Amino acid sequence: MRKEKLTAEPAEEGIVPVEGPLGIKIVSIDFLLPSDETPVIWRGPMKANAIRQFLADVVWGDLDFLLVDLPPGTGDEPLSIMQLIPDIDGVLMVTTPSEVSQIVVKRAVGFTRELQVPLIGIIENMSGFVCPKCGTEFDIFGAGGGQRISEELNVPFLGKIPIDQKLCEDSDRGIPFVIQHAESPAVKALMGIVDKIEDYLRNRKS
Amino acid sequence: MRKEKLTAEPAEEGIVPVEGPLGIKIVSIDFLLPSDETPVIWRGPMKANAIRQFLADVVWGDLDFLLVDLPPGTGDEPLSIMQLIPDIDGVLMVTTPSEVSQIVVKRAVGFTRELQVPLIGIIENMSGFVCPKCGTEFDIFGAGGGQRISEELNVPFLGKIPIDQKLCEDSDRGIPFVIQHAESPAVKALMGIVDKIEDYLRNRKS
Repeated sequence: MRKEKLTAEPAEEGIVPVEGPLGIKIVSIDFLLPSDETPVIWRGPMKANAIRQFLADVVWGDLDFLLVDLPPGTGDEPLSIMQLIPDIDGVLMVTTPSEVSQIVVKRAVGFTRELQVPLIGIIENMSGFVCPKCGTEFDIFGAGGGQRISEELNVPFLGKIPIDQKLCEDSDRGIPFVIQHAESPAVKALMGIVDKIEDYLRNRKS
Repeated sequence: MRKEKLTAEPAEEGIVPVEGPLGIKIVSIDFLLPSDETPVIWRGPMKANAIRQFLADVVWGDLDFLLVDLPPGTGDEPLSIMQLIPDIDGVLMVTTPSEVSQIVVKRAVGFTRELQVPLIGIIENMSGFVCPKCGTEFDIFGAGGGQRISEELNVPFLGKIPIDQKLCEDSDRGIPFVIQHAESPAVKALMGIVDKIEDYLRNRKS
Protein backbone atom coordinates (compact mmCIF):
# COMPACT_ATOMS: atom_id res chain seq x y z
CA MET A 1 0.00 0.00 0.00
CA ARG A 2 1.31 3.40 -0.99
CA LYS A 3 1.59 5.34 2.23
CA GLU A 4 3.72 8.35 1.48
CA LYS A 5 2.61 10.98 -0.98
CA LEU A 6 4.62 11.20 -4.19
CA THR A 7 5.44 14.70 -5.30
CA ALA A 8 6.87 16.05 -8.50
CA GLU A 9 9.34 18.78 -7.66
CA PRO A 10 8.93 22.18 -9.30
CA ALA A 11 12.55 23.18 -9.98
CA GLU A 12 14.12 26.15 -11.73
CA GLU A 13 14.29 24.33 -15.07
CA GLY A 14 10.70 23.05 -14.80
CA ILE A 15 8.75 20.22 -13.17
CA VAL A 16 10.99 17.28 -12.25
CA PRO A 17 9.09 14.00 -12.80
CA VAL A 18 8.81 11.25 -10.20
CA GLU A 19 11.00 8.22 -10.95
CA GLY A 20 9.37 4.76 -10.56
CA PRO A 21 11.12 1.52 -9.49
CA LEU A 22 12.20 0.71 -13.08
CA GLY A 23 13.55 4.19 -13.70
CA ILE A 24 10.42 5.19 -15.58
CA LYS A 25 9.69 8.89 -15.20
CA ILE A 26 6.12 9.79 -14.42
CA VAL A 27 4.18 12.97 -14.07
CA SER A 28 0.56 13.24 -12.98
CA ILE A 29 -1.66 15.96 -11.68
CA ASP A 30 -1.87 13.76 -8.56
CA PHE A 31 1.76 14.52 -7.74
CA LEU A 32 1.20 18.27 -7.80
CA LEU A 33 -1.80 18.47 -5.48
CA PRO A 34 -1.35 19.11 -1.75
CA SER A 35 -3.41 16.08 -0.59
CA ASP A 36 -5.32 13.05 -1.87
CA GLU A 37 -8.55 14.82 -1.01
CA THR A 38 -7.90 17.97 -3.02
CA PRO A 39 -10.44 17.86 -5.85
CA VAL A 40 -9.51 19.07 -9.32
CA ILE A 41 -12.50 21.27 -10.09
CA TRP A 42 -11.40 22.24 -13.56
CA ARG A 43 -13.33 22.80 -16.72
CA GLY A 44 -11.85 21.89 -20.10
CA PRO A 45 -9.70 24.97 -20.78
CA MET A 46 -7.85 24.57 -17.46
CA LYS A 47 -7.28 20.89 -18.19
CA ALA A 48 -5.90 21.79 -21.61
CA ASN A 49 -3.52 24.22 -19.90
CA ALA A 50 -2.31 21.55 -17.48
CA ILE A 51 -1.71 19.15 -20.36
CA ARG A 52 0.20 21.86 -22.23
CA GLN A 53 2.37 22.41 -19.15
CA PHE A 54 3.00 18.70 -18.75
CA LEU A 55 4.26 18.58 -22.31
CA ALA A 56 6.28 21.79 -22.26
CA ASP A 57 7.51 22.34 -18.69
CA VAL A 58 8.49 18.88 -17.46
CA VAL A 59 12.22 18.15 -17.44
CA TRP A 60 11.88 14.79 -19.17
CA GLY A 61 15.48 14.53 -20.38
CA ASP A 62 16.13 12.01 -23.15
CA LEU A 63 13.15 9.69 -23.60
CA ASP A 64 12.73 6.47 -25.56
CA PHE A 65 8.95 6.75 -25.43
CA LEU A 66 6.40 9.19 -24.12
CA LEU A 67 3.26 7.33 -23.14
CA VAL A 68 0.12 9.34 -22.35
CA ASP A 69 -2.53 7.43 -20.39
CA LEU A 70 -5.93 8.92 -21.15
CA PRO A 71 -9.41 8.44 -19.69
CA PRO A 72 -11.95 6.46 -21.74
CA GLY A 73 -13.96 8.26 -24.38
CA THR A 74 -13.44 11.21 -26.63
CA GLY A 75 -13.34 14.20 -24.32
CA ASP A 76 -11.17 17.24 -23.79
CA GLU A 77 -8.03 15.38 -22.77
CA PRO A 78 -7.46 13.27 -25.91
CA LEU A 79 -8.47 16.23 -28.05
CA SER A 80 -5.86 18.47 -26.39
CA ILE A 81 -3.14 15.81 -26.58
CA MET A 82 -3.77 15.08 -30.24
CA GLN A 83 -3.79 18.73 -31.16
CA LEU A 84 -0.72 19.62 -29.08
CA ILE A 85 1.63 16.80 -30.12
CA PRO A 86 2.34 17.27 -33.82
CA ASP A 87 3.67 13.83 -34.74
CA ILE A 88 2.13 11.11 -32.59
CA ASP A 89 3.50 7.65 -33.45
CA GLY A 90 0.20 6.05 -32.72
CA VAL A 91 -2.74 5.36 -30.45
CA LEU A 92 -3.32 2.17 -28.46
CA MET A 93 -6.98 1.47 -27.78
CA VAL A 94 -7.73 -0.64 -24.71
CA THR A 95 -11.11 -2.29 -24.24
CA THR A 96 -12.77 -4.94 -22.07
CA PRO A 97 -14.35 -7.96 -23.81
CA SER A 98 -17.92 -6.73 -23.17
CA GLU A 99 -20.26 -5.50 -25.88
CA VAL A 100 -21.09 -2.30 -24.00
CA SER A 101 -17.52 -1.04 -23.76
CA GLN A 102 -17.10 -1.57 -27.47
CA ILE A 103 -19.36 1.36 -28.26
CA VAL A 104 -16.87 3.59 -26.43
CA VAL A 105 -14.03 2.05 -28.46
CA LYS A 106 -15.86 2.49 -31.75
CA ARG A 107 -16.35 6.17 -31.04
CA ALA A 108 -12.72 6.51 -29.96
CA VAL A 109 -11.55 4.87 -33.20
CA GLY A 110 -13.78 7.29 -35.12
CA PHE A 111 -12.18 10.08 -33.11
CA THR A 112 -8.58 9.18 -34.03
CA ARG A 113 -9.59 8.76 -37.68
CA GLU A 114 -11.28 12.14 -37.70
CA LEU A 115 -8.14 13.72 -36.23
CA GLN A 116 -5.94 11.66 -38.60
CA VAL A 117 -3.80 10.18 -35.85
CA PRO A 118 -2.47 6.66 -36.66
CA LEU A 119 -3.97 3.76 -34.73
CA ILE A 120 -1.50 1.06 -33.63
CA GLY A 121 -4.23 -1.35 -32.63
CA ILE A 122 -6.72 -2.66 -30.11
CA ILE A 123 -5.83 -4.44 -26.85
CA GLU A 124 -8.40 -6.47 -24.93
CA ASN A 125 -7.92 -6.18 -21.16
CA MET A 126 -9.66 -8.12 -18.33
CA SER A 127 -9.92 -10.96 -20.75
CA GLY A 128 -11.01 -14.02 -18.77
CA PHE A 129 -10.05 -15.30 -15.33
CA VAL A 130 -8.50 -18.69 -14.61
CA CYS A 131 -9.44 -19.95 -11.14
CA PRO A 132 -6.08 -20.40 -9.35
CA LYS A 133 -7.59 -23.25 -7.32
CA CYS A 134 -9.37 -25.47 -9.87
CA GLY A 135 -8.03 -24.11 -13.18
CA THR A 136 -11.44 -23.43 -14.76
CA GLU A 137 -11.54 -20.39 -17.03
CA PHE A 138 -14.35 -17.85 -16.78
CA ASP A 139 -15.12 -15.04 -19.18
CA ILE A 140 -16.15 -12.74 -16.35
CA PHE A 141 -16.49 -9.67 -18.52
CA GLY A 142 -17.54 -11.32 -21.77
CA ALA A 143 -15.36 -12.81 -24.50
CA GLY A 144 -13.89 -11.92 -27.84
CA GLY A 145 -15.08 -8.32 -28.01
CA GLY A 146 -11.66 -6.89 -28.83
CA GLN A 147 -11.05 -9.28 -31.70
CA ARG A 148 -14.56 -8.71 -33.05
CA ILE A 149 -14.27 -4.94 -33.04
CA SER A 150 -10.80 -5.10 -34.66
CA GLU A 151 -12.22 -7.03 -37.58
CA GLU A 152 -15.28 -4.83 -37.85
CA LEU A 153 -13.24 -1.62 -37.92
CA ASN A 154 -10.25 -3.06 -39.78
CA VAL A 155 -7.77 -2.21 -37.03
CA PRO A 156 -4.93 -4.59 -35.95
CA PHE A 157 -5.70 -6.71 -32.88
CA LEU A 158 -2.65 -6.69 -30.60
CA GLY A 159 -3.69 -9.28 -28.03
CA LYS A 160 -5.69 -9.98 -24.92
CA ILE A 161 -4.58 -9.76 -21.31
CA PRO A 162 -6.20 -12.17 -18.86
CA ILE A 163 -7.12 -11.03 -15.34
CA ASP A 164 -4.49 -11.75 -12.69
CA GLN A 165 -5.17 -10.86 -9.07
CA LYS A 166 -1.44 -10.33 -8.53
CA LEU A 167 -1.45 -7.42 -11.00
CA CYS A 168 -3.80 -5.48 -8.76
CA GLU A 169 -1.85 -6.44 -5.61
CA ASP A 170 1.47 -5.42 -7.11
CA SER A 171 0.05 -2.13 -8.41
CA ASP A 172 -1.35 -1.26 -5.00
CA ARG A 173 2.06 -1.97 -3.45
CA GLY A 174 3.92 -0.03 -6.14
CA ILE A 175 5.79 -3.13 -7.37
CA PRO A 176 6.26 -3.70 -11.14
CA PHE A 177 4.04 -6.70 -11.92
CA VAL A 178 5.96 -7.58 -15.11
CA ILE A 179 9.17 -8.19 -13.10
CA GLN A 180 7.62 -9.65 -9.95
CA HIS A 181 5.42 -12.15 -11.77
CA ALA A 182 7.17 -12.71 -15.09
CA GLU A 183 5.69 -16.24 -15.25
CA SER A 184 2.08 -14.97 -15.24
CA PRO A 185 0.05 -15.52 -18.43
CA ALA A 186 -0.94 -11.85 -18.15
CA VAL A 187 2.72 -10.79 -18.33
CA LYS A 188 3.35 -13.13 -21.27
CA ALA A 189 0.38 -11.59 -23.07
CA LEU A 190 1.64 -8.10 -22.26
CA MET A 191 5.08 -8.92 -23.64
CA GLY A 192 3.57 -10.25 -26.85
CA ILE A 193 1.75 -6.95 -27.25
CA VAL A 194 4.95 -5.00 -26.57
CA ASP A 195 6.68 -6.95 -29.38
CA LYS A 196 3.92 -5.99 -31.81
CA ILE A 197 4.16 -2.33 -30.80
CA GLU A 198 7.94 -2.40 -31.34
CA ASP A 199 7.43 -3.93 -34.79
CA TYR A 200 4.95 -1.18 -35.61
CA LEU A 201 7.37 1.53 -34.51
CA ARG A 202 10.26 -0.01 -36.42
CA ASN A 203 8.19 -0.16 -39.62
CA ARG A 204 7.02 3.39 -39.09
CA LYS A 205 10.55 4.74 -38.75
CA SER A 206 12.00 2.84 -41.70
CA MET B 1 -26.19 -8.76 -28.11
CA ARG B 2 -27.70 -5.43 -28.97
CA LYS B 3 -28.04 -5.41 -32.71
CA GLU B 4 -30.41 -2.59 -33.53
CA LYS B 5 -29.54 1.00 -32.73
CA LEU B 6 -31.64 2.67 -30.04
CA THR B 7 -32.74 6.15 -30.83
CA ALA B 8 -34.34 8.82 -28.73
CA GLU B 9 -36.99 10.56 -30.82
CA PRO B 10 -36.88 14.33 -31.13
CA ALA B 11 -40.59 15.27 -30.98
CA GLU B 12 -42.43 18.57 -30.96
CA GLU B 13 -42.54 18.68 -27.16
CA GLY B 14 -38.86 17.76 -26.81
CA ILE B 15 -36.66 14.65 -26.81
CA VAL B 16 -38.65 11.47 -26.07
CA PRO B 17 -36.52 9.10 -23.96
CA VAL B 18 -35.96 5.42 -24.80
CA GLU B 19 -37.91 3.05 -22.56
CA GLY B 20 -36.04 0.00 -21.17
CA PRO B 21 -37.51 -3.45 -20.42
CA LEU B 22 -38.60 -2.41 -16.90
CA GLY B 23 -40.22 0.80 -18.09
CA ILE B 24 -37.23 2.85 -17.06
CA LYS B 25 -36.77 5.88 -19.28
CA ILE B 26 -33.25 6.51 -20.48
CA VAL B 27 -31.56 9.21 -22.44
CA SER B 28 -27.96 9.17 -23.59
CA ILE B 29 -25.92 11.01 -26.14
CA ASP B 30 -25.47 7.55 -27.70
CA PHE B 31 -29.14 7.52 -28.72
CA LEU B 32 -28.85 10.80 -30.59
CA LEU B 33 -25.82 10.01 -32.74
CA PRO B 34 -26.23 8.62 -36.26
CA SER B 35 -23.94 5.58 -35.76
CA ASP B 36 -21.81 3.79 -33.16
CA GLU B 37 -18.72 5.09 -34.87
CA THR B 38 -19.65 8.78 -34.75
CA PRO B 39 -17.16 10.30 -32.32
CA VAL B 40 -18.26 13.04 -29.93
CA ILE B 41 -15.47 15.56 -30.43
CA TRP B 42 -16.70 18.10 -27.94
CA ARG B 43 -14.89 20.32 -25.53
CA GLY B 44 -16.34 21.15 -22.12
CA PRO B 45 -18.75 23.98 -23.07
CA MET B 46 -20.51 21.79 -25.67
CA LYS B 47 -20.82 18.97 -23.16
CA ALA B 48 -22.33 21.40 -20.66
CA ASN B 49 -24.85 22.41 -23.33
CA ALA B 50 -25.80 18.80 -24.02
CA ILE B 51 -26.29 18.18 -20.30
CA ARG B 52 -28.43 21.31 -20.02
CA GLN B 53 -30.58 20.05 -22.92
CA PHE B 54 -30.92 16.61 -21.34
CA LEU B 55 -32.23 18.22 -18.19
CA ALA B 56 -34.51 20.79 -19.83
CA ASP B 57 -35.69 19.35 -23.16
CA VAL B 58 -36.38 15.68 -22.42
CA VAL B 59 -40.04 14.77 -22.01
CA TRP B 60 -39.49 12.81 -18.80
CA GLY B 61 -43.06 12.94 -17.55
CA ASP B 62 -43.56 12.14 -13.87
CA LEU B 63 -40.43 10.59 -12.40
CA ASP B 64 -39.81 8.87 -9.07
CA PHE B 65 -36.08 9.32 -9.41
CA LEU B 66 -33.70 10.93 -11.84
CA LEU B 67 -30.40 9.08 -11.81
CA VAL B 68 -27.42 10.63 -13.57
CA ASP B 69 -24.59 8.20 -14.33
CA LEU B 70 -21.33 10.13 -14.51
CA PRO B 71 -17.79 9.22 -15.59
CA PRO B 72 -15.15 8.78 -12.87
CA GLY B 73 -13.36 11.82 -11.57
CA THR B 74 -14.13 15.44 -11.12
CA GLY B 75 -14.39 16.86 -14.61
CA ASP B 76 -16.75 18.99 -16.58
CA GLU B 77 -19.74 16.65 -16.45
CA PRO B 78 -20.23 16.40 -12.66
CA LEU B 79 -19.50 20.10 -12.34
CA SER B 80 -22.23 20.97 -14.87
CA ILE B 81 -24.74 18.59 -13.29
CA MET B 82 -24.14 19.87 -9.79
CA GLN B 83 -24.40 23.46 -10.86
CA LEU B 84 -27.50 22.95 -13.04
CA ILE B 85 -29.65 20.86 -10.65
CA PRO B 86 -30.47 23.10 -7.70
CA ASP B 87 -31.55 20.53 -5.11
CA ILE B 88 -29.75 17.21 -5.62
CA ASP B 89 -30.87 14.58 -3.09
CA GLY B 90 -27.45 13.09 -2.98
CA VAL B 91 -24.42 11.57 -4.63
CA LEU B 92 -23.55 7.86 -4.74
CA MET B 93 -19.85 7.18 -5.03
CA VAL B 94 -18.88 3.88 -6.63
CA THR B 95 -15.36 2.47 -6.27
CA THR B 96 -13.46 -0.77 -6.82
CA PRO B 97 -11.69 -2.37 -3.82
CA SER B 98 -8.21 -1.39 -5.05
CA GLU B 99 -6.04 1.24 -3.41
CA VAL B 100 -5.41 3.07 -6.65
CA SER B 101 -9.05 3.78 -7.44
CA GLN B 102 -9.51 5.19 -3.97
CA ILE B 103 -7.47 8.25 -4.84
CA VAL B 104 -10.09 9.05 -7.49
CA VAL B 105 -12.86 8.57 -4.89
CA LYS B 106 -11.13 10.76 -2.33
CA ARG B 107 -10.91 13.58 -4.81
CA ALA B 108 -14.53 13.07 -5.84
CA VAL B 109 -15.65 13.22 -2.20
CA GLY B 110 -13.66 16.43 -1.79
CA PHE B 111 -15.40 17.69 -4.93
CA THR B 112 -18.96 17.11 -3.62
CA ARG B 113 -18.00 18.68 -0.28
CA GLU B 114 -16.56 21.71 -2.03
CA LEU B 115 -19.80 22.09 -4.02
CA GLN B 116 -21.90 21.37 -0.90
CA VAL B 117 -23.83 18.50 -2.48
CA PRO B 118 -24.90 15.82 0.05
CA LEU B 119 -23.15 12.46 -0.14
CA ILE B 120 -25.39 9.40 0.32
CA GLY B 121 -22.48 7.03 0.64
CA ILE B 122 -19.83 4.82 -0.93
CA ILE B 123 -20.52 1.56 -2.81
CA GLU B 124 -17.78 -0.96 -3.49
CA ASN B 125 -18.20 -2.67 -6.86
CA MET B 126 -16.25 -5.63 -8.35
CA SER B 127 -15.82 -6.83 -4.82
CA GLY B 128 -14.46 -10.38 -5.00
CA PHE B 129 -15.26 -13.31 -7.28
CA VAL B 130 -16.54 -16.70 -6.14
CA CYS B 131 -15.45 -19.49 -8.52
CA PRO B 132 -18.71 -21.03 -9.76
CA LYS B 133 -16.95 -24.41 -10.06
CA CYS B 134 -15.05 -24.87 -6.78
CA GLY B 135 -16.55 -22.11 -4.60
CA THR B 136 -13.25 -20.47 -3.66
CA GLU B 137 -13.42 -16.68 -3.27
CA PHE B 138 -10.80 -14.44 -4.83
CA ASP B 139 -10.28 -10.74 -4.22
CA ILE B 140 -9.37 -10.13 -7.83
CA PHE B 141 -9.31 -6.37 -7.55
CA GLY B 142 -8.21 -6.07 -3.91
CA ALA B 143 -10.32 -6.10 -0.76
CA GLY B 144 -11.94 -3.74 1.71
CA GLY B 145 -11.02 -0.48 -0.02
CA GLY B 146 -14.57 0.92 0.04
CA GLN B 147 -15.04 0.28 3.76
CA ARG B 148 -11.62 1.73 4.52
CA ILE B 149 -12.19 4.93 2.60
CA SER B 150 -15.66 5.36 4.14
CA GLU B 151 -14.16 5.30 7.63
CA GLU B 152 -11.30 7.53 6.67
CA LEU B 153 -13.55 10.19 5.13
CA ASN B 154 -16.48 9.68 7.52
CA VAL B 155 -18.95 8.79 4.76
CA PRO B 156 -21.57 5.99 5.11
CA PHE B 157 -20.59 2.68 3.55
CA LEU B 158 -23.59 1.30 1.63
CA GLY B 159 -22.31 -2.16 0.73
CA LYS B 160 -20.19 -4.16 -1.64
CA ILE B 161 -21.25 -5.91 -4.85
CA PRO B 162 -19.40 -9.10 -5.77
CA ILE B 163 -18.50 -9.86 -9.40
CA ASP B 164 -21.03 -12.02 -11.25
CA GLN B 165 -20.33 -13.05 -14.82
CA LYS B 166 -24.08 -13.14 -15.49
CA LEU B 167 -24.34 -9.39 -14.85
CA CYS B 168 -22.09 -8.69 -17.81
CA GLU B 169 -23.88 -11.26 -19.99
CA ASP B 170 -27.32 -9.86 -19.15
CA SER B 171 -26.16 -6.28 -19.73
CA ASP B 172 -24.76 -7.17 -23.13
CA ARG B 173 -28.07 -8.81 -24.04
CA GLY B 174 -30.15 -5.91 -22.67
CA ILE B 175 -31.81 -8.09 -20.00
CA PRO B 176 -32.30 -6.71 -16.46
CA PHE B 177 -29.87 -8.73 -14.31
CA VAL B 178 -31.79 -8.01 -11.07
CA ILE B 179 -34.89 -9.78 -12.44
CA GLN B 180 -33.17 -12.51 -14.45
CA HIS B 181 -30.83 -13.57 -11.65
CA ALA B 182 -32.59 -12.49 -8.46
CA GLU B 183 -30.87 -15.33 -6.54
CA SER B 184 -27.36 -13.98 -7.30
CA PRO B 185 -25.37 -12.68 -4.30
CA ALA B 186 -24.66 -9.61 -6.42
CA VAL B 187 -28.39 -8.86 -6.73
CA LYS B 188 -28.90 -9.41 -2.99
CA ALA B 189 -26.08 -6.97 -2.28
CA LEU B 190 -27.60 -4.48 -4.74
CA MET B 191 -30.99 -4.74 -3.07
CA GLY B 192 -29.47 -4.13 0.37
CA ILE B 193 -27.89 -0.97 -1.02
CA VAL B 194 -31.22 0.14 -2.53
CA ASP B 195 -32.84 -0.24 0.93
CA LYS B 196 -30.22 2.02 2.46
CA ILE B 197 -30.72 4.63 -0.26
CA GLU B 198 -34.49 4.56 0.31
CA ASP B 199 -33.92 5.05 4.06
CA TYR B 200 -31.70 8.00 3.30
CA LEU B 201 -34.29 9.59 1.02
CA ARG B 202 -37.10 9.03 3.54
CA ASN B 203 -35.08 10.67 6.29
CA ARG B 204 -34.16 13.53 4.01
CA LYS B 205 -37.76 14.25 3.11
CA SER B 206 -39.13 14.03 6.65
